[in-house]
Amino acid sequence: MVKIGYLGPRGTFTKLAVDTAFNGEDKHSFDTIPECIDAVEENRIDIGVVPLENAIEGTVQLTVDYLVHQVRLPIIAEIVVPIQQHLLVDSIFSGDLSNLEEIHSHSHAIAQCHQFIHKYMPDAAINFTSSTGKAAEVVSKSDKNIAAIGNKLAAEEYGLRIYQENIHDYPNNHTRFAVLAKNEDIVKIKHDKQAEKTSLLITLPSDYAGALHQVLSAFAWRKMNLSKIESRPMKTGLGNYFFIVDVNQPYDGVLFPSVQAELEALGCKVTVLGTYPVYQMNI
Amino acid sequence: MVKIGYLGPRGTFTKLAVDTAFNGEDKHSFDTIPECIDAVEENRIDIGVVPLENAIEGTVQLTVDYLVHQVRLPIIAEIVVPIQQHLLVDSIFSGDLSNLEEIHSHSHAIAQCHQFIHKYMPDAAINFTSSTGKAAEVVSKSDKNIAAIGNKLAAEEYGLRIYQENIHDYPNNHTRFAVLAKNEDIVKIKHDKQAEKTSLLITLPSDYAGALHQVLSAFAWRKMNLSKIESRPMKTGLGNYFFIVDVNQPYDGVLFPSVQAELEALGCKVTVLGTYPVYQMNI
Repeated sequence: MVKIGYLGPRGTFTKLAVDTAFNGEDKHSFDTIPECIDAVEENRIDIGVVPLENAIEGTVQLTVDYLVHQVRLPIIAEIVVPIQQHLLVDSIFSGDLSNLEEIHSHSHAIAQCHQFIHKYMPDAAINFTSSTGKAAEVVSKSDKNIAAIGNKLAAEEYGLRIYQENIHDYPNNHTRFAVLAKNEDIVKIKHDKQAEKTSLLITLPSDYAGALHQVLSAFAWRKMNLSKIESRPMKTGLGNYFFIVDVNQPYDGVLFPSVQAELEALGCKVTVLGTYPVYQMNI
Repeated sequence: MVKIGYLGPRGTFTKLAVDTAFNGEDKHSFDTIPECIDAVEENRIDIGVVPLENAIEGTVQLTVDYLVHQVRLPIIAEIVVPIQQHLLVDSIFSGDLSNLEEIHSHSHAIAQCHQFIHKYMPDAAINFTSSTGKAAEVVSKSDKNIAAIGNKLAAEEYGLRIYQENIHDYPNNHTRFAVLAKNEDIVKIKHDKQAEKTSLLITLPSDYAGALHQVLSAFAWRKMNLSKIESRPMKTGLGNYFFIVDVNQPYDGVLFPSVQAELEALGCKVTVLGTYPVYQMNI
């Protein structure tokens, strides 16, 4: 059976993404992003699922930095899951919002529901937990009238009731996850792909005005569309940057090699982080 | 006395930045980034200090999204602080690393010290806390032989001893903070500025190939150097983006207005998030 590792604990968005994307494989929770990536590298698991863009459980920075500096595993797929934060209460709670004395959640989930809390629960005491899953656990074990903020899976895992759905401030927020594996043939996602992307890591030779503009020329005149660009400081000190670029098309034998050859002639270093399908999940 | 708000709790990198940058002003801790920004907007505090790039306490996304979508306050200054994670123990602990049974910290701080833990403390149980400051508090209240990962300030605030300095994996990691205020004259930072920057928010009219390249042309031919560029999805749905661009020079009366006029003629929307000095702190 295929072994899938994910950034835990239970009841988080990463676990929700894994459960939505994969059937009943053998699933293992890891405590940190580097531990999960190491486990794939060392063949202890076959597939690793880690956050690429997720304000709560991990940042693109941690995942990208580890892939860039420590372990070079290809991105095999991207999973996109909408952020839906719910107000979770004990299944026997029968009061209304004003009876809930405390709200428990990760600080970023609290921040994502700022306007709801401000408007409807201004007197509730805020308690921070290390994850949204942990917050659900706290509520499930408590005798008091308290609430957690978390997703549907957290409610299921800890037997909580969704008191109010979708209390997050922005309706169109998403989390993105990278699926990492050495052997792409074992990655079977039970959805249809929506798009294909190629992620490149581009290091500039020096920090001069217009360097990035010159790099983007190589894509622009070939009409290769970029869906994401982000500069990240190198770990060698301030003032040195690399760029992560997502191109909205699969790697091919003509356009991409030409772009790479041109950029390398300009002194850039180009690394393909992966060319992969994107799966948009509806949960 | 000037009232300064910051993203708490005690013993975090944001508090360290505030203590390093400002003298004995009246300092107030806030639980979330939106609460701190709201407090400046509603004149309850004069200055707010929130993370712009900080994998542990908050992401650029939360701060930028709130400034873009909810409250438009100018960035008055940027404070850059090196990330230095230390292994903290109770002041009376007299054993060695192998005697430490547990490590407590925020999951991102644990991830930042992954190699140290893997190599020197492979048997220690990992416990996640909501912040590095909270981890220091747990250690200070415990009778067991346990350690926290946190910064110098966390050690001071909770009376812990730094057992080993600088256990983080990457030596050149930094956190960046935005100083927000309505009146820039009250912001007095007790250091010399290292640089000046201007941050712009640019919304593209549509998602077509080469649009970003065209936008960057306006900067490139004027030899205006960009130190950061990041695309962020609009909250209106997938496929719409805005860009945050940091230009390495102060706003002026000629170059910037010309860039703005050209980009607006192309159908872009340009907003100046701030033009401000950068202070690099040595702690």
